Amino acid sequence: MKAVCLISGGIDSAVTAAIAKSRGFAVHALTFDYGQRHKKEIECAKSIAKWLGANHKIIRIDLAQLGGSALTSDIEIETGKTPDEIKSSPIPATYVPARNTIFLSFALAYAETIGADVVFIGANAVDYSGYPDCRPEYIEAFQRMADLATKRAVEGAPIKIEAPILNLDKAQIIKKGKEMGVPFEKTWSCYKGGKKACGVCASCVLRLDGFKRAGVGDGVEYE
Amino acid sequence: MKAVCLISGGIDSAVTAAIAKSRGFAVHALTFDYGQRHKKEIECAKSIAKWLGANHKIIRIDLAQLGGSALTSDIEIETGKTPDEIKSSPIPATYVPARNTIFLSFALAYAETIGADVVFIGANAVDYSGYPDCRPEYIEAFQRMADLATKRAVEGAPIKIEAPILNLDKAQIIKKGKEMGVPFEKTWSCYKGGKKACGVCASCVLRLDGFKRAGVGDGVEYE
Repeated sequence: MKAVCLISGGIDSAVTAAIAKSRGFAVHALTFDYGQRHKKEIECAKSIAKWLGANHKIIRIDLAQLGGSALTSDIEIETGKTPDEIKSSPIPATYVPARNTIFLSFALAYAETIGADVVFIGANAVDYSGYPDCRPEYIEAFQRMADLATKRAVEGAPIKIEAPILNLDKAQIIKKGKEMGVPFEKTWSCYKGGKKACGVCASCVLRLDGFKRAGVGDGVEYE
Repeated sequence: MKAVCLISGGIDSAVTAAIAKSRGFAVHALTFDYGQRHKKEIECAKSIAKWLGANHKIIRIDLAQLGGSALTSDIEIETGKTPDEIKSSPIPATYVPARNTIFLSFALAYAETIGADVVFIGANAVDYSGYPDCRPEYIEAFQRMADLATKRAVEGAPIKIEAPILNLDKAQIIKKGKEMGVPFEKTWSCYKGGKKACGVCASCVLRLDGFKRAGVGDGVEYE
């Protein structure tokens, strides 16, 4: 029983893949080198895949060529907001146009090729409510499209999209990961490309707040 | 008024892009170098984009790395079928897992980035009824997903997916292209990577049959 798990190198996808593994799936991890500034993510994705004992494929797709995001260009990354400010903000500059749609499309293709029944994605609607492609209704619509998109679907065995942490908050995700022994020190959240995490970008702020509320050690160094 | 037009180098996408242009859109052509054997397609896509006066972006994505198709691997391409046999066949080995989903996802991202209102795709349900991602219900489901996927959608201006030749047969497509002056001699349909078109693969057979029924000259040399 195979599953394709999208692994970014961050906490959410690591916990999601650990959930897939705990359900008995043979994990086939898929990571995108998409021109993001935070390349360290990719090294972390490799460590997480190794910890999972997963087959790991890294696909290079140049989203920077398409532009439109602070994560793939020189647009400044906002810092210094509180967790509540981040959660109630409109869509930030770190939004990458149609990123999850592109990632899920590749995962769907890969799942069909290797004969996997499920694609797991660490989308989360609670902390990042501003990202349109992290909402439950989006995941459901992708599923309905996927139910028509593939040869497998036509043959009556469509590939299922699962987002098991969709409605958990960061502290709940961390607690769940802790239970399964996810090595958080091997994950990376910071949007910037530094050696240590910046501690002030939206992703660092939500991470720090999550670990604090979960009462669990982070394991990552901050500037 | 901008439109992203997926251009493969074949007839269907060339006619589709010409329709977009005739409707007054500034065409932004998007082509994928996806590891296909028929690289000549990409040169043809360049010629068509030039004829259209379009901005042209070629994105390299390695679908061969994912495998699963005769178009991106050493699986043999079937030859010698009649047009009717091809149209009534089950999904052939030339099916590329989730290809249109991947292409449309990139087109959606690109449209959002450059501020285009519409994505045009030359999907056709008549000649290639075996391909799941060429069916009207698939295109509609992709639209519903796209209506939730982007920042623009959240802001009330979702990007529209148009497939204007979806229900035309090849002869009708060719006649429509002829009316608009599409330079068919600059298009490429053959699945194989030869200097001349093979004339016997499914794509060549449908092309030859279409030109014959349309009563229009092809302009491409066959072996």
